[in-house]
Amino acid sequence: MTAEIVCVGTEILLGNIVNTNAVYISQKCAGLGIPIYYQTAIGDNEKRLEQMVKTAFERSDIVIFSGGLGPTEDDLTKETVAKALGTPLVEDEHSKERIKGYFKTFKTKVITENNWKQAMVPEGSFVMDNNNGTAPGIIIEKNGKTAVLLPGPPNELVPMFEESVIPYFKEKNSETIYSVMVKLCGVGESSVENAILDMIDSQTNPTIATYAKTGEVHLRVTALAKDEAEAKRIIKPMLDELEKRFGDSIFTMDENESFEDSIVKMLTSKNLTVTTVESCSGGLIAGRIVNSNGASNCFKEGYVTYSNEAKMKLVGVKEEVLKEFGAVSHETAVMMAEGGAKAAGSDMAVAVTGIAGPNGGSEEKPVGLVYIACFDGSKTTVDRCIFKGNREKVRTQTVVRALTMLRECIIYKYGK
Amino acid sequence: MTAEIVCVGTEILLGNIVNTNAVYISQKCAGLGIPIYYQTAIGDNEKRLEQMVKTAFERSDIVIFSGGLGPTEDDLTKETVAKALGTPLVEDEHSKERIKGYFKTFKTKVITENNWKQAMVPEGSFVMDNNNGTAPGIIIEKNGKTAVLLPGPPNELVPMFEESVIPYFKEKNSETIYSVMVKLCGVGESSVENAILDMIDSQTNPTIATYAKTGEVHLRVTALAKDEAEAKRIIKPMLDELEKRFGDSIFTMDENESFEDSIVKMLTSKNLTVTTVESCSGGLIAGRIVNSNGASNCFKEGYVTYSNEAKMKLVGVKEEVLKEFGAVSHETAVMMAEGGAKAAGSDMAVAVTGIAGPNGGSEEKPVGLVYIACFDGSKTTVDRCIFKGNREKVRTQTVVRALTMLRECIIYKYGK
Repeated sequence: MTAEIVCVGTEILLGNIVNTNAVYISQKCAGLGIPIYYQTAIGDNEKRLEQMVKTAFERSDIVIFSGGLGPTEDDLTKETVAKALGTPLVEDEHSKERIKGYFKTFKTKVITENNWKQAMVPEGSFVMDNNNGTAPGIIIEKNGKTAVLLPGPPNELVPMFEESVIPYFKEKNSETIYSVMVKLCGVGESSVENAILDMIDSQTNPTIATYAKTGEVHLRVTALAKDEAEAKRIIKPMLDELEKRFGDSIFTMDENESFEDSIVKMLTSKNLTVTTVESCSGGLIAGRIVNSNGASNCFKEGYVTYSNEAKMKLVGVKEEVLKEFGAVSHETAVMMAEGGAKAAGSDMAVAVTGIAGPNGGSEEKPVGLVYIACFDGSKTTVDRCIFKGNREKVRTQTVVRALTMLRECIIYKYGK
Repeated sequence: MTAEIVCVGTEILLGNIVNTNAVYISQKCAGLGIPIYYQTAIGDNEKRLEQMVKTAFERSDIVIFSGGLGPTEDDLTKETVAKALGTPLVEDEHSKERIKGYFKTFKTKVITENNWKQAMVPEGSFVMDNNNGTAPGIIIEKNGKTAVLLPGPPNELVPMFEESVIPYFKEKNSETIYSVMVKLCGVGESSVENAILDMIDSQTNPTIATYAKTGEVHLRVTALAKDEAEAKRIIKPMLDELEKRFGDSIFTMDENESFEDSIVKMLTSKNLTVTTVESCSGGLIAGRIVNSNGASNCFKEGYVTYSNEAKMKLVGVKEEVLKEFGAVSHETAVMMAEGGAKAAGSDMAVAVTGIAGPNGGSEEKPVGLVYIACFDGSKTTVDRCIFKGNREKVRTQTVVRALTMLRECIIYKYGK
């Protein structure tokens, strides 16, 4: 079984939008055990779309389309696919009622005639409700080929995929695909890959795949089995092995838990509070902590001390220290962390001071030099980092490294 | 002349990475007047790559490839394209020397044999130096077709495109393409599109295209002319017309200037300072301001006052106000802004307090309710917003709206 994705929309070809649908669908299909061989983006052009549909059905068993289901004349995906499969369009009463209902929620909006076009579906197709828009999704199976038609807007496509497409394919499969996402921090992608090369080489069931994002590496472990219980049993030894190899670097095995969630959870469970004292990161560390829904339990206040005066006034950095060692120094970072904890009355504090660039660097203190200090309640650890890249990259890496250090300090002093 | 993009790499098909190369190349080609009709992503698979190269050359004059130029056996793009065009590979002495030089900078690294594969180029091709990696880029013209081969890593592809590909195509073109990016804030994409429908409908040269990002709308005005001076002359009336229609909503016409840059520039030119007092945004407004390289001129310190205690302690919000009106209220927002300016000794202040969700909402104060207050030095303006979406979306919209208000207050009180 082979599959491909066709995203329809001129805005993608103009580079107007990032094709996040292709990424999302690819990830989900990998999880479903459906291998994607091609992702194509094409414009709202009848002739090229027709040719594309033909090409796609020639080379793939399943073709997943996104976009071109709307009410305008430009929206041609459904018509073109139905034509290619030789299936007539018929009116779907249920979808018509839903479109009526959708417009009722907007009192001022009038249903223009072209909206009814969206209630026309290929005969014999499986219609998927759109809970976030008007165009329903459609799955058609014919001559051993399956076409999945999804609306283009990600806020319509994603819920529909979760609610309807995944269950559809899961039901088709007599086997269950079950996966666990193991998330690591403080380790690089290549060193993670090296450490599990033997597992990758010998993988059959379960399989293991690595995904990298700034400062984190995610490992998806996927098993195929007759039911979920069996899948969990198959996965267990591999998870144990990963735990053995990576230990504390694993911050969660919960797909929906972010790095900041895991830190907030740790602090909360230990009844600890933290504060942030930020210079070059300018509030982004606090911003990450507050991403987490439960932040109020462990985070009460934070300081953005961008100027030297602010460092003295808000967190009590001594003027002599700034004069002798400079704002970007080990000594200043320590005083920021310790002074921050004192000012906020918090158990812990993380502080950063650095040169994000592009200006302000010198031979001794180059652009990218950042001191990160973490006060754990009794002592302060400092990390001197030299980050590469532009201002944005230096700052992003600073935030991730600071959070990683905070987590390490919590574990070291208070346990995992 | 038609063109398409082929991105090679299994990691794209797995949804492991977002295909930013396709977005970048598409945008640049739009600017060069080269229409992209297809974007395709395929894996590192010889057979499918071969078929893809054939299909692409059948339907397009220019095919731009990214990825698959590296030293490993998986990297097949160059070999496959050369074969399809019937061109043998020959060793490029210059590239060989550059690869040697590249490895010299890493004292510990040894050049493995497979690296020399990267110095093999199709006979008669134009070789583009890679200043950020080992694999050179290649342009081959044959039988009226042009193949552009670029390395996959964006930090290698982007500089190479700027330094070599754009000049190459500009030289091919006897005409100059010149464009100006007009950036707007505080207006929605659809209202911008509505306001320029007549200009879009009647466009020939210059052309106009809209791009939306959170809280901003960008309009690219592009002219085709015999030289840059002529292009600027052609563009001028359209820019004047946009200025007339959108006025103060235009924050810059400089492609490289961000929204926060423009605000920092305004504040600096007026010798004004600002502070931030953030609850639900948790530092992200300060973080945006500090994105701008010149932030130190106008931003000295900021406060993340997440708890009620912090609101009282750091910026002097009165306990009675918090008790009577609540932390998320018009009154608290005003006190946060005014107290923040006083505490920081700044001319202006922007403060936000709201319910980002998913918890904490009530019928009277639903999730998404955010009060944004801006103190301009003498008076405070408050905006009561109800943002839709999840926690992340509410917070992102809060940050953008707060910055937009800050800009409006500066203009209102101090002029543009």
